[in-house]
Amino acid sequence: MTTPPRIAILGATGAVGLELIEILRQRAFPVASLRLLASARSAGETLDIQGKPHTIEEATPDAIRDLDLLFGCASADAARELAPLAAERGAYVVDNSSAFRMNPDCPLVVPEVNPEALATLRAKGAGIAANPNCSTIIATVALAPIRRRFGLQRVNIATYQAASGAGKPAMEELESQTRAVLEGDDPEPRIFAEPCAFNVFSHDSPVDPDTGRNVEEQKMIDEMRRIFDDPALRIAATCVRVPVRRAHAEAVTITLTEPAAESDIRAALQDAPGVRIIDDRAGNDFPTPLKASGTDQTLVGRIRPDESQDSIERDGATLHRGYHLFICADQLRKGAALNAVQIAELLIR
Amino acid sequence: MTTPPRIAILGATGAVGLELIEILRQRAFPVASLRLLASARSAGETLDIQGKPHTIEEATPDAIRDLDLLFGCASADAARELAPLAAERGAYVVDNSSAFRMNPDCPLVVPEVNPEALATLRAKGAGIAANPNCSTIIATVALAPIRRRFGLQRVNIATYQAASGAGKPAMEELESQTRAVLEGDDPEPRIFAEPCAFNVFSHDSPVDPDTGRNVEEQKMIDEMRRIFDDPALRIAATCVRVPVRRAHAEAVTITLTEPAAESDIRAALQDAPGVRIIDDRAGNDFPTPLKASGTDQTLVGRIRPDESQDSIERDGATLHRGYHLFICADQLRKGAALNAVQIAELLIR
Repeated sequence: MTTPPRIAILGATGAVGLELIEILRQRAFPVASLRLLASARSAGETLDIQGKPHTIEEATPDAIRDLDLLFGCASADAARELAPLAAERGAYVVDNSSAFRMNPDCPLVVPEVNPEALATLRAKGAGIAANPNCSTIIATVALAPIRRRFGLQRVNIATYQAASGAGKPAMEELESQTRAVLEGDDPEPRIFAEPCAFNVFSHDSPVDPDTGRNVEEQKMIDEMRRIFDDPALRIAATCVRVPVRRAHAEAVTITLTEPAAESDIRAALQDAPGVRIIDDRAGNDFPTPLKASGTDQTLVGRIRPDESQDSIERDGATLHRGYHLFICADQLRKGAALNAVQIAELLIR
Repeated sequence: MTTPPRIAILGATGAVGLELIEILRQRAFPVASLRLLASARSAGETLDIQGKPHTIEEATPDAIRDLDLLFGCASADAARELAPLAAERGAYVVDNSSAFRMNPDCPLVVPEVNPEALATLRAKGAGIAANPNCSTIIATVALAPIRRRFGLQRVNIATYQAASGAGKPAMEELESQTRAVLEGDDPEPRIFAEPCAFNVFSHDSPVDPDTGRNVEEQKMIDEMRRIFDDPALRIAATCVRVPVRRAHAEAVTITLTEPAAESDIRAALQDAPGVRIIDDRAGNDFPTPLKASGTDQTLVGRIRPDESQDSIERDGATLHRGYHLFICADQLRKGAALNAVQIAELLIR
């Protein structure tokens, strides 16, 4: 690989692609050249990056050349077509789609949690790394430091997911639909099947007719097990959309392998990479999607024992097996583009 | 008691009071006379009910006379002052506030769940019945039929609570703040400490410095145990506000005493009073706050085994110990005014 790398962004005009361009700049990511790839619809348009116009190229197999690093910010179908080509031609690919997440040849990585999973790829100098699902990333950042110290037996998550997870058109629909409802109209939903303004609804991904789980929930289960390298981890998830623009929240209940004091849980989170604790009981100040929006950290609060689970007394302290956490993070940043750039930083380091 | 009863509504101009007036009409509740009581601020104003102007009286001890039935739709402080007076003077009181919910002399009732708790009050012909917290009512309506058949060991709930739970000013703040945000402003929150437009935040009730639970969560725990008459029931709750106008949602995970097949859970809910199942996996059609708004039923869907809990095989069927449900109901109706009117119907029957 040449250093700095020649970079392309596949799906550069989407919500994640645009965020990624901004994050490369903010983190002063080394860039020899930056090419923007998108569907035929956007090809030929220009996008200004740091005052310089960049012409958008159509994302075809021919465009996948002279690259050291490809960021995939497009659909799983587009990724399946073009990412393997880039890897064959000697580039690293960091792909945001679900296409390679369960492929054993493609490490699934949250840099704060399992950076070691990139070792094989780095040894090869090329290949595809997969960026996990947004809800999974956020949960693992907060749970990894606790799991490291006390072990994790079971995780139960209810999500509060922003419109941004469904892309720019969904964010626009949330705004336009809300505006219409405030004007007394009854707008027809287009992107989501359910009205999103002033409403909450079960995640819009397809539901398995047998298990009753939707695809988002199944992703959280499969991906969290893979990232933690613990196929037996018991995970349950209920994924729900809320009328929020770009940061997800999660109400998390965990069961530890080793019971722990609340102070130990706090200590584990205190210096954890990527984690910021906001947990002021007196001030009722806890994580919210708005506090997380535009930031790089996973906010953790409402840290408290789950007294519906067992506890033991040891040396005058109460050690709980169960804890609750409330977690928020920016879906477009840590949930997608930032995590991808962090993976790339580990690859080209 | 004279039949039909002479009725007064304490807090008639609030969100719950106004809804209650409407529900009395919709259910053709027998009314000899209807008096509206409110704070000094509203006293002297008139409210049209079925085309007839009613003058609002100030809610003073003197106003609590010649009554058979008082609906309390005001603060706990107002209820503590005036409800006992009404009971002493021979009236039934159905109070929506938290003032009497844990008072052993005042039954805490969800008519679909524990109507028998009203027996003592009916024998006396007067006294105070307490209306439970909105989130508690909704959960118990859905859980009671399951509990009756299979027993309930543990309940874990994450809520998605509407602005209406904080009253009319909160509903107005949600609208005006959303409007301002859409116009690019950054409005200062007034009713809630956190911005409510396009945001999600931990419930605005005070947080216990030791347990970390907020008052809303503690209410759900205490009241659900009392309604189910099961002080040992293990309950955990995480209460969260979402930018929704008037219906709550709850993601519920339960642990049964006796493991059950999914078909048995569905059968238990199918004919349960007050419950309507919306659970179309193929059509991704499940309960939402908008579907519940303005209706009397508790919508239940996303009914599925929680595979992170144990299961057993028996006679070729898989019996699960854990299940997930997603529940929605109108906070102002079943969560407050409707439940109060249903209690009154049982009292005057």
